[in-house]
Amino acid sequence: MTKPETVTIAVDAMSGDAGANVIVEASLQILQKFDHVHLLLAGDVDTLARCLSVTQLPEKRYTVVPSTEVVTMDDSAAIAMRQKKNSSMRVAINQVKEGKAAACVSAGNTGALMAISRFVLKTMPGIDRPAIIKTLPGIGSHTYVLDLGANVDCTAEHLLQFAVMGSTLASAVEDLPAPRVGLLNIGSEDIKGNEQIKQAARLLADSDINYIGFVEGNEIFSDHVDVVVCDGFVGNVALKTSEGLAKLVSHYLREEFRRNWVNKLIALVAMPVLKAFRSRIDPRKYNGASLVGLKGVVIKSHGGADAVAFANAMEIAVIESTKNVPLLIGERVQQQLPVV
Amino acid sequence: MTKPETVTIAVDAMSGDAGANVIVEASLQILQKFDHVHLLLAGDVDTLARCLSVTQLPEKRYTVVPSTEVVTMDDSAAIAMRQKKNSSMRVAINQVKEGKAAACVSAGNTGALMAISRFVLKTMPGIDRPAIIKTLPGIGSHTYVLDLGANVDCTAEHLLQFAVMGSTLASAVEDLPAPRVGLLNIGSEDIKGNEQIKQAARLLADSDINYIGFVEGNEIFSDHVDVVVCDGFVGNVALKTSEGLAKLVSHYLREEFRRNWVNKLIALVAMPVLKAFRSRIDPRKYNGASLVGLKGVVIKSHGGADAVAFANAMEIAVIESTKNVPLLIGERVQQQLPVV
Repeated sequence: MTKPETVTIAVDAMSGDAGANVIVEASLQILQKFDHVHLLLAGDVDTLARCLSVTQLPEKRYTVVPSTEVVTMDDSAAIAMRQKKNSSMRVAINQVKEGKAAACVSAGNTGALMAISRFVLKTMPGIDRPAIIKTLPGIGSHTYVLDLGANVDCTAEHLLQFAVMGSTLASAVEDLPAPRVGLLNIGSEDIKGNEQIKQAARLLADSDINYIGFVEGNEIFSDHVDVVVCDGFVGNVALKTSEGLAKLVSHYLREEFRRNWVNKLIALVAMPVLKAFRSRIDPRKYNGASLVGLKGVVIKSHGGADAVAFANAMEIAVIESTKNVPLLIGERVQQQLPVV
Repeated sequence: MTKPETVTIAVDAMSGDAGANVIVEASLQILQKFDHVHLLLAGDVDTLARCLSVTQLPEKRYTVVPSTEVVTMDDSAAIAMRQKKNSSMRVAINQVKEGKAAACVSAGNTGALMAISRFVLKTMPGIDRPAIIKTLPGIGSHTYVLDLGANVDCTAEHLLQFAVMGSTLASAVEDLPAPRVGLLNIGSEDIKGNEQIKQAARLLADSDINYIGFVEGNEIFSDHVDVVVCDGFVGNVALKTSEGLAKLVSHYLREEFRRNWVNKLIALVAMPVLKAFRSRIDPRKYNGASLVGLKGVVIKSHGGADAVAFANAMEIAVIESTKNVPLLIGERVQQQLPVV
């Protein structure tokens, strides 16, 4: 077997709610898991030195890239972009722009990350707007859903671009020759979607995408479809709704197993099974959304991610970089999308 | 205590996938639970006679209203409306129009039910479009969500009307003096919704509704909000997504408890707790959506409802009729909405 080429990942070590310690812990997990990864840790030199004295990373497999500012969760995209040019987020993205890293991972403010990535890296030719894509769990396999909130109002052409990007990404990452792509629509018999959805359906049917038609919200979690395409408003509501319901269900389960001392005893007996169950719906395993359509891999981690969750986001960056997803999307767009 | 006035509920006994037997079984449950209810069973006379010989309903508490046709799940709204004027669905709705019943319950085709209800009963003055409203489970209490699929494209004024209807219904049914109303929006920091949402927020803030601001999809299942307002596309996706996830979670739980013989033994021990848990997420307990904004109560049951689920939908009809929700909505609309 040939050794895979080294892949360098830039990490915004200062954003996110959990602090740089967590980022360094996650970095250790990734370096232990992947031999071919090198990390660029963008952050405050002193802070990182302290963290690295606690969690020691293998020498020569990381470099600290100094930054002096931090984008906060409350900073507007405009403030982050114009007034914090030396933020850890900006410095990490710059590494990708300068060809020093293939990907950037950040647990910071989504709006700022999208704005800076778009400004610094630019979108692929043929792509109007980057989209946010992420996997959600399913029976059997998982499903990629995009857009999850970057684009509130989308035309049919945008939805087609999302489909091309989602299909290419899923194909590369999951080794699927022709991922099944569905358009998210509503099932009420009276109305089958708005004009934009119907027009997008025609564009998808005419493309070489493996388009399987309209899917409803519940099918995201089925094994009928690999990529679900929707506008960012609908996608974000679907994502947040499913997160809320998962939390409610865990809450109910916990409540029932704590209702009285008999139930608490039963919970002790059932602990290993309940643990196995919880690990399957553990949101940390699904942490990490890709900002696709850019000239480079950018992964957004949940702001409150712990080391396990952040490492998951980093792993997505490693996989997409190793598979060279942006290049594949660029090629696919050139072949498929009409020149507008 | 004064005896409540008799409330008559018209039931479409022929639509739905499970057959008239299930409707008659559900009818028995309702008549046993509520002393003040009288039922009008709209359906084929012979079919109903057979069902009533199996499940005997208390005499004098029901009347069979003959119909000769059935609206199928595949019938378009136009076909159902124009070519099946003697369908069980139409006959049941006619009972409300003619003042013989306060409410109609049907497990039939949503599009047909909405179209016929709107045509026969008409909307309340000041309401442009009826909406579909339903409760979803929450931590502590449940949450009303509308619209769930009747209206794909909505203006800010429509969203305001939905808010007025949802607030009035929740107030009457739950005995809440001022239900907390939220507008469903997305949480991505970059974008806080489209123009229509922002405009609706201004209208709601200026109304006397207890408007608490934007809520995200996950908050539907929290105890922060009593009524969540959104357009029918987004609402339908949120509903279906949560149904899909609930099913996936049950699937995972079942899989883990059946993984091997040790787990199967543990499942036996944990059975009572698991049963209590399942009953809390049992979708049958949430069966029944109201078509609000009409001059009469119309409740849509899931097509595949069993007797427990259909009885739940009937119970919603009983409660909304007893509380006279359409009248309250009519009064509230006159007070609150600007004359357009």
